[in-house]
Amino acid sequence: MDRRSFLKTTALGGASAAAASTLAAPAFAQGKRTLTMVTTWPRGLAGVWDSVERFATSVTEMTDGALTIEPKAAGELVGGLEVFDAVTAGQADMYHGADYYFTGQHPAMAYFTTVPFGMTAPEMMVWYYGMGGMQLHHNLGEIFGLKSFIAGQTGAQGGGWFRKEMMSPADFQGLKFRMPGLGGEALSKLGASVQTIAGGEIYQALSSGALDGTEWIGPWSDEKLGLQEVCDYYYPAGFHEPGAALSVATNLEVFEGLTPAQQKAIEVAAGDAHQHNYSLFMANNGPALQRLISGGTQVKEFSSEIWDAYGAASKEVLDGYMDDELFAEIRTSAEAAMASTSGWAARSDSAYTAQRDRVLANLK
Amino acid sequence: MDRRSFLKTTALGGASAAAASTLAAPAFAQGKRTLTMVTTWPRGLAGVWDSVERFATSVTEMTDGALTIEPKAAGELVGGLEVFDAVTAGQADMYHGADYYFTGQHPAMAYFTTVPFGMTAPEMMVWYYGMGGMQLHHNLGEIFGLKSFIAGQTGAQGGGWFRKEMMSPADFQGLKFRMPGLGGEALSKLGASVQTIAGGEIYQALSSGALDGTEWIGPWSDEKLGLQEVCDYYYPAGFHEPGAALSVATNLEVFEGLTPAQQKAIEVAAGDAHQHNYSLFMANNGPALQRLISGGTQVKEFSSEIWDAYGAASKEVLDGYMDDELFAEIRTSAEAAMASTSGWAARSDSAYTAQRDRVLANLK
Repeated sequence: MDRRSFLKTTALGGASAAAASTLAAPAFAQGKRTLTMVTTWPRGLAGVWDSVERFATSVTEMTDGALTIEPKAAGELVGGLEVFDAVTAGQADMYHGADYYFTGQHPAMAYFTTVPFGMTAPEMMVWYYGMGGMQLHHNLGEIFGLKSFIAGQTGAQGGGWFRKEMMSPADFQGLKFRMPGLGGEALSKLGASVQTIAGGEIYQALSSGALDGTEWIGPWSDEKLGLQEVCDYYYPAGFHEPGAALSVATNLEVFEGLTPAQQKAIEVAAGDAHQHNYSLFMANNGPALQRLISGGTQVKEFSSEIWDAYGAASKEVLDGYMDDELFAEIRTSAEAAMASTSGWAARSDSAYTAQRDRVLANLK
Repeated sequence: MDRRSFLKTTALGGASAAAASTLAAPAFAQGKRTLTMVTTWPRGLAGVWDSVERFATSVTEMTDGALTIEPKAAGELVGGLEVFDAVTAGQADMYHGADYYFTGQHPAMAYFTTVPFGMTAPEMMVWYYGMGGMQLHHNLGEIFGLKSFIAGQTGAQGGGWFRKEMMSPADFQGLKFRMPGLGGEALSKLGASVQTIAGGEIYQALSSGALDGTEWIGPWSDEKLGLQEVCDYYYPAGFHEPGAALSVATNLEVFEGLTPAQQKAIEVAAGDAHQHNYSLFMANNGPALQRLISGGTQVKEFSSEIWDAYGAASKEVLDGYMDDELFAEIRTSAEAAMASTSGWAARSDSAYTAQRDRVLANLK
């Protein structure tokens, strides 16, 4: 796949620009404007919908309603996975979603959510805000007529739930496991029978034996699905989604029609929402993990042998997209940033927290 | 020290409120307003001043100049350490500084920058935005007539620079070391001769032998001071400032006189600036550490025995303030959040990054 092929197959330019302008003009003239934000989420989905609301409320309040963001749940205006096309075509003003749902539009979209063996949430912040990631997100979005910002963050997603302990890579052979996206592609290379099942159906699939295991989000969200009732083993560390960002993307013509103050409000509210949402997930994951442990869940860590297998499979998957020039540019930038940040953080933050937690436990 | 004693000794209430209102009224009436922000920093100080500018620019641009933030460097209006009193007294509208400079006003101010054996920057985000830290910051600020938000973040500060390798706690006996604040108090319990010397004088003090070692900020900032020229040993992980936040505090009467949209702009711009600034420091520390290593600096890690000594001394220092009710409340909240977050992050992010970095090194 190359950049040009995406340009050809995506509705851009004249038609969508005209649609956006037509929609926008009447409200704009009165000095007040409502932007319709379609989302990939059910209304109220814990954590994720908080990010929608934080962003929408901040923009609306900071502009004193001159720019009112009106979020729509999946299905209210368009289906959850149709939001990208709806915004590029000018049928909605902006979307809130996880960009890795749109790897069909461009594989590099994955980098603005998360990729296997990619960045943790703090590393993502460093790349995005400090090392050029945001500009690459804009460059990618503009191909499709979007102005994109990350605006939410689940933090590290768990390695997942299993009905038996995973001892070696051979245990993945034939395992019926739910994992979407590039992580799922990698897992299938280990011989797993990878399924993509919507959140609401996971519990039943595990109960019936249609699934042997699943990943979902993290302890907070997983506990709400009741996964601890149908699986005994939980692996907090996973390879597939080390820090999943959520995005707000505005139709580019709509964005360019806003005042500079309104554009800045969108940018700054998105940044603030990213940090808030990360904090919210982390704040809830800690206590949830403790409850799971108290409830009898066996918390495990994959062996180095399994991590090696995950790593080789993930590399194979990512290498498969390297003939796309923009994918290669974004991957190279992300991996360089990750290596640089990790080189410092491993020797500062990680060395510190390991010693701190050891010392504080002894001082109790 | 208790809360009441602080109230008595701080200029609050009638006088300062009146001063603020008098200052504000004429500009406010025209619908445009300039807020003077005094800071504890020299203009242009790398990293730190970026946080000042990110915040000020965001507020000014998002309000289309209705609220223009005008930063003043230390000494331009008041001295760097006088900003707290200037804002509580209504002589300036807001300050940007590190709240641990103001532990003389209240010891719990330290928690809104950093404390020994405290939180890393990502943990601070979780506590502040997700587990009640911001509300406690407001509660503390309001005692002094301030509305406080964190708005900058240096990330982990390095353990410091030494002219000889540190082998055991006994090596700190008589060591002439520069370390301010509660960390310095702890270090003196190890027998060090603790100095507080301004940044601009550190290099000379090390050259002349007046100092045996120093901490400053992190590799990026330390390299600019040239510390690698006068010390051979660098310890990236330190106990004293595991993630230092910077704050913006607005005179409470001034804040309450703003429109809800302007108040929200200050809150959201501060959040965004915190994340941006963290990213900026981290983005620059990674490459700087690599340059230091290439240049011949010996990068070391303190032994567990030294960490144990740091831990016991830090606990003693923090315990010494526990007769203050608000200090105790804030410390308890911060430590509970830290333990909860660390319990999840150690098993997810830390376990992941350790395996990822190992696997990726092998795949090269």
